Order: sequence, then structure tokens, then C-alpha cells
Amino acid sequence: MQTLNVDLGDRSYPIFIGADLFRSANLAPYIRGNQVLIVSNETVAPLYLDQLKAVLPPVQIDDVILPDGEQFKTLEQLNAVFDRLLECRHNRTTTLIALGGGVIGDMTGFAAACYQRGVNFIQIPTTLLSQVDSSVGGKTGVNHPLGKNMIGAFHQPQVVLASVDVLRTLPDRELSAGLAEVIKYGLVYDARFLDWLEKNMSGLVGRDTSLLSYAIYRSCELKAEVVAQDEKESGVRALLNLGHTFGHAIESCQGYGNWLHGEAVAAGTVMAADLSQRLGWISSDDYQRVVRIMKMANLPVEAPQGMTSEDFMTLMAVDKKVIDGQLRLILLKALGRAVVTDQFDPASLQHTLTRFAS
Amino acid sequence: MQTLNVDLGDRSYPIFIGADLFRSANLAPYIRGNQVLIVSNETVAPLYLDQLKAVLPPVQIDDVILPDGEQFKTLEQLNAVFDRLLECRHNRTTTLIALGGGVIGDMTGFAAACYQRGVNFIQIPTTLLSQVDSSVGGKTGVNHPLGKNMIGAFHQPQVVLASVDVLRTLPDRELSAGLAEVIKYGLVYDARFLDWLEKNMSGLVGRDTSLLSYAIYRSCELKAEVVAQDEKESGVRALLNLGHTFGHAIESCQGYGNWLHGEAVAAGTVMAADLSQRLGWISSDDYQRVVRIMKMANLPVEAPQGMTSEDFMTLMAVDKKVIDGQLRLILLKALGRAVVTDQFDPASLQHTLTRFAS
Repeated sequence: MQTLNVDLGDRSYPIFIGADLFRSANLAPYIRGNQVLIVSNETVAPLYLDQLKAVLPPVQIDDVILPDGEQFKTLEQLNAVFDRLLECRHNRTTTLIALGGGVIGDMTGFAAACYQRGVNFIQIPTTLLSQVDSSVGGKTGVNHPLGKNMIGAFHQPQVVLASVDVLRTLPDRELSAGLAEVIKYGLVYDARFLDWLEKNMSGLVGRDTSLLSYAIYRSCELKAEVVAQDEKESGVRALLNLGHTFGHAIESCQGYGNWLHGEAVAAGTVMAADLSQRLGWISSDDYQRVVRIMKMANLPVEAPQGMTSEDFMTLMAVDKKVIDGQLRLILLKALGRAVVTDQFDPASLQHTLTRFAS
Repeated sequence: MQTLNVDLGDRSYPIFIGADLFRSANLAPYIRGNQVLIVSNETVAPLYLDQLKAVLPPVQIDDVILPDGEQFKTLEQLNAVFDRLLECRHNRTTTLIALGGGVIGDMTGFAAACYQRGVNFIQIPTTLLSQVDSSVGGKTGVNHPLGKNMIGAFHQPQVVLASVDVLRTLPDRELSAGLAEVIKYGLVYDARFLDWLEKNMSGLVGRDTSLLSYAIYRSCELKAEVVAQDEKESGVRALLNLGHTFGHAIESCQGYGNWLHGEAVAAGTVMAADLSQRLGWISSDDYQRVVRIMKMANLPVEAPQGMTSEDFMTLMAVDKKVIDGQLRLILLKALGRAVVTDQFDPASLQHTLTRFAS
């Protein structure tokens, strides 16, 4: 088991990464009071809920099982968590435990941020994507019909448990979606990690445990460094959103739940690379490397059928990175170096949208 | 115009108190971006919305008008604010302005805390209660059918405008409800202020402008001192909840909106005084002074008809001050000195409940 520390002053917390952590990691020091609510979903609960309950200390343990999918990341489902907390009379010292992927993690974290104006929570991410991304950094929230993650809070967990063995039960599509975010870390921050990923992609897709462990560790390490520098995303943290502005538009247009988040990010990253190439910042070879690694990870490299460039423009206008009407994008100055910028000519953006739109 | 500063480090903010502040106070320095959403209700908007819009700087100004009343302090109405923000494409630099009483202030503050994980807001409280209480200290939130203020956040405003002249349009019952919280400050922290209130209560009920200004200033000053010491209510701030545990039970039992919050707090404060007397902490004369000043302010000193002691016990068990199953109450050691305590015998509590319950 390896431990990474996310350094955020009095909100610092450890991430445990390794195999079989349900048995080997001790959660008791991270549970303050004598109540726990486990939040999980209909897919994950049958696989891991009993296993988790068996290793918790002897406190009042309740659970709430939500439907599975991004389309259920809503205020309404959040309220089901509050209903359960109040029915079971959980007080301010309660601890929420998120057992599931990014949707469960984001909703549980937001419920913890808001319940009685803030209680503790623990993240146990069960997808590759949530292990490398949404469980690190304290971003929590729910979607709104008019925009993804528009309602939320920054709220840090007490501890994160990233157990590699739970990935054995992860569907292939979900594994690929997680790899999209892993690739993103290489593209944004670390050209050497990108090289490593290119070399080992077939092993990662084949679920080699030690390769996956290293990919998770390095991704979390990169994200933890960034979050420590910029907890509230006023600067360098924004770079982690490479591909996300295009990607969120894809998700919104398709209706949440049809494309996986990582799939939308993969196509969005290819679009960001395309625009970066049009601006003369990366070469055609660089662009082809981005397309190739996404394909190796079995990820989409085109926008969905039927989505127009007008769809993109409308949906991108509500992105959180829009400031005073000016769209800002994360683009690539090189492979391994991203920037957040509003310095791109609208014609180039239009060309990228036309190239990818139907 | 007088200015009080609430000292919270980089979250510090001023409270302006005085007459005709809509005209004399300049809000421009507190609006960061070029978008404003005014949140108000059906009662207040016809009286003051145009007046407010007329003095705002030339930015994009949108509004959302909610139904009036504590029964609308819900996640559903909160979502109406999010709908409007997204329909009008408000971004991270937007400023929300709460124009209304405590319900509007709490909901607007919570919407600001959650929208895009946190935007700025300004409080313009239009009731005495919200001027002296809910606009100071950053507590925001909504109710849940199983408990009041159970879902929320700590989020500080940029500035608070407490304009005394808006109280001219306040119904008598609402004025009295505000006086309940003013009296509370005297009972909890300041025996001299309590004396002043006893002497001037008929003038306050008669809406004497200078008396009201002083009562608001001193109440805000006391609350600002407490909040500066204890922003997240881990200690001394809890004392401000004198009468609130009993009061919240009354509100829950009656259905939100039938009793005003201040009315429930008044009856709850009398109950807390009764229990304090039973414990031998205050005298019978002290208790009678509490009853008398509430009556002078035209406030209820009895629990509502039909509410049983079992109702109280059930509803008090979900109070946020319950820790690990142990009920804690704010009680009086003297007039002007309150304590938070679990050191009361259950029989005395039962006697108080029996005395006040039906």
C-alpha cells in the first residue's frame, strides 16, 4: 500500500493506493462520531457494501443506495441522501462514506458539505476515473439540466481509499473512460508520463495490476500537487479541465448518461488538440499522437453523430470558465504542457467545431 | 449611516445601518463582475425592487421572485434560483443580491455558496429579524421536511445593507418577531441592553426610528463580536440559539409558516427560562421579567395549542446541537448570561415540557 498526502493545511488528507485495501486499511481514525452513512449505487452495492460494512468500527451504520448513472447526479437524488440522514437521525459528527464512482463521490461529498452546514466524509472510489480524478481535490456537486456540475462546493474528504482490486469488476467502457483522464495528466503536465502511457497502454487496457497501480499513483500525485497549489481553481488547477469544455457540451447535448464522462473528455481532448494544431502550437504529428493514444485506449476521437457546431457554441457558453462573456479554453502549447487561454481566433475555433460537428 | 465591520480575516465585510440606505449607500465596490441577480419575494419585490435596480451600477441585472414564507425555504425553490442563473447565463463573477427577510437571505446566500461552487452575494434585509440576525454571520440554508435549516453552508456576504426605513412597511407581527431576537441578545450577552430594551419597548413597538436604529446597531454589534470569535459555531456562537431548540420544534410541529420564526423563538425562550428557573439558575422574578418583556413586544409566551411533550421530544432529537445522542440546550445562568449545556436532569426538562405542552 502506498500513501500520498494532499497538502491543504488543516484540510490535508491521505490517499491510500494499493490492492485489497478494504481489508488492509484502517478507517477507524477517520470516523469522528458514532454514526456512518454509506452512500452507494445499485451496481456497486451488491459487490462491495457488505465487504465495507464488515471492516468498519462498531458504530451506527446506515446506507442509502441510489440509481446508477450520471443522469441521476441531481438535486433530487441528493435529497434522498438528506432524507436518509434525517430519518436515521444523523448528527453533526456523522461521517458519510462514498462507495462508488465519480457520481457517487461528487454527490456524497456535496451532501457532506451541506448537511447541517458541513460534516465529514470518506471517499472509496470504485472506478478508475474516480480513483485518478474526482476523488482528489474536493470538488463536489450535482448537475443541472442546463449545465454539468453547476451546483456544488469545495469540500475535502478525511481520507481516500483507492483499492486497485475493485477494478476487476469494472466494465471495459468504464476502464477506458478512466484511462482518458490518466492520458490527460500526461498531456497537461508530464511528457515522460505520456511516453510511459503510450508504451504500456495495451497492458493497462489488459488490466495489469502493477501497471494500473502506477498509473493511479502518478495521476493522483500530479493532481495532488496541483490541488495543493490551487485548491479553489483560480489558476493552475484549471488546466486539469483539458478537453472538458468540449466534453461537457457533448455530455449536455447527448443527455447525461449516454456518453461516459471520460469518453466525452477523450473526444473533447482531441478537439482541443485539433484547435491547438490550427493555432500552430503543436505539430500534426503531435495531434496524431493524441488521436492514436485515445484509440489505443478504445476511446472515441470524434464528436457524437448529429451534434452541430451551434450545439457546441450554445452549450459551451455556460461553461464555468466563461468570464464576463469571454470563452476560455484549455489548449496545448506542447504535449505535456497546457495553458488556459482566451487568445484564440474565433475562426479557428469555428473550423475545429465544423470539422468535428455533423 | 453607521458602519460595523464583521472581522473574519479575508472574509470580513461591512454592515451599513441607517435610514434611506438604498439612496445613500454605494454598492458598486461590492459587485465584482458585470452580472447581478436580485432574489426577492412576492411581498417585497413590488415595494423595493425598482428602487434597488435604480441605484445599481450599469451591469446585467436579472431577478427572480419567489413566493413569500418559511414554507418556501426549500430545495425546490432554491432550484428556481439556479434555473434563473443558468437561463440568464450568469458566470462565476456574478453577484447575487438578497432583497427580503431571513428566508430570502438564507436561500440567496446558500444559492451563492453552491452556484458554480461559490459566487459573491450581498444582503439587503427588509425585516427587523433578518437585519439583526440572519444577515450577520454567514449561516445560509434551506429547510427539510424533517428539520429546519438542515441543509446549508457557511458563506459570508460582501456587504449588508440594513436600512431602517424599510421597516415602515413591515407588518406588526413581523416587527414583534424581530424584537424576539433583539431581546435574545440582551438575555444571552448583555444585561444592560436588556434593561434598555425593557425601558424602551413601547417606543420600539411604536417604530421610533432612532430607537430601532440603536436596537439594530447594538444587536448586530453583539452578533458580529460573537461571529468574529466563532465563525463555524463550535463554541460561543451556539449561545445565540437561546430558545431555538424549543422554537424549532414548535415551527416543525406547526408546519413552517404558521408561526413566525421569532414567535417560536419567543415561546422557546420562555421555555428555556422556565427550565433555567427549575434548575435554580435564575429566580422566579427573573423568569417573570422574561415573560413580561416578551408580552410587551406582543410575542407569544406559551407553546401552540395541541402540541404534546412527546412532540417536543421527537422534534428536539434532530436538533443540530444533539451530539452522539445527547441533547444540549442553551439555558440562562442569569439574565444577560447564557450557557450551552447538557447538565440538566431529564425530569426538570420533562416538567418544563409538561407545563407548556397541551
